[in-house]
Amino acid sequence: MTDLTEKKISSEKIFDGKVLHVAVDRVLLPNGEEGIREIVLHRGAVAVIPLTDDEDVICVRQFRYVHGQVLLEIPAGKLEESDIDVREAALRELEEETGASCESLEEMGVFYPTPAICSEKIHLFMARGLKFGETHPDDDEFLEIERIPLKTLVKMVMRGEVPDSKTQACVLRAWLALHPGELAD
Amino acid sequence: MTDLTEKKISSEKIFDGKVLHVAVDRVLLPNGEEGIREIVLHRGAVAVIPLTDDEDVICVRQFRYVHGQVLLEIPAGKLEESDIDVREAALRELEEETGASCESLEEMGVFYPTPAICSEKIHLFMARGLKFGETHPDDDEFLEIERIPLKTLVKMVMRGEVPDSKTQACVLRAWLALHPGELAD
Repeated sequence: MTDLTEKKISSEKIFDGKVLHVAVDRVLLPNGEEGIREIVLHRGAVAVIPLTDDEDVICVRQFRYVHGQVLLEIPAGKLEESDIDVREAALRELEEETGASCESLEEMGVFYPTPAICSEKIHLFMARGLKFGETHPDDDEFLEIERIPLKTLVKMVMRGEVPDSKTQACVLRAWLALHPGELAD
Repeated sequence: MTDLTEKKISSEKIFDGKVLHVAVDRVLLPNGEEGIREIVLHRGAVAVIPLTDDEDVICVRQFRYVHGQVLLEIPAGKLEESDIDVREAALRELEEETGASCESLEEMGVFYPTPAICSEKIHLFMARGLKFGETHPDDDEFLEIERIPLKTLVKMVMRGEVPDSKTQACVLRAWLALHPGELAD
């Protein structure tokens, strides 16, 4: 197998924001030439697909400024500097955005939304055995909760009506986990 | 339904790179307060899941600098400034990365990898009726092609072994399009 590795030669810090950290790195490419990588460093995030006993998904509708539109998504949030446990962060985001706690929180692995440019890793979870309380969104977070049958959501994803990446993946993964069909063969 | 819209007050340009354009915007939140949005503007991209008549997927393995690891992905690429047709861009990326042309290119809608911070939209496609020629990767692009049965890939995604977002979504969507199972009910 060929060595595809790119090695850092130098890194220029461009921007240190609250959420985004941007750098331009000079790298040594596998062919010995130099290349430039413009990169965004991000602390990471968690996302949770909350599934009721009736196979409804608790979704949130949220305005996404860069796209100028309200998107249908599963609950998610950035990791805080103080987060040491991604499971606790997932439980917090679930509770803040939907008011729900859960009996079971199953790990679904990591998800790299944009591996070409951004270091963000989203830790994915499926929450079952939901109990509902009050929501506590962040100060600059405004959202509406919507309960949608999983099967309806799968069909929406298949028709291309759910652009959010983590929501597409988690909805289909939850469906196939519960309804493996020919996968079980 | 509540108005969740955030309105731009002002925008400060931070960085104008080759791929990334970073800005910090002041916005008016739905509650009348002001907020800050750190955003990455991106021209967009295309991704193609190339499926053979035997239901194998033509994947690429590529080093992803921000993650420091080789990832298994479906073919994809940034839109060029000159691109006016996303279908043509998809055919180009498919041919450059895998050497394949295709008889059918089915649209699967748009995909927002990171709607909280980046404007990137990936136009998703499924390519069928593949014919193979030579690959022509970009000058700074180094990749290996790997042919994997769709069902094997679906199981890898379900086990959390395929972190790339567009690959997770497209593999499961291709599977459910060909094997709808209970979805057909």
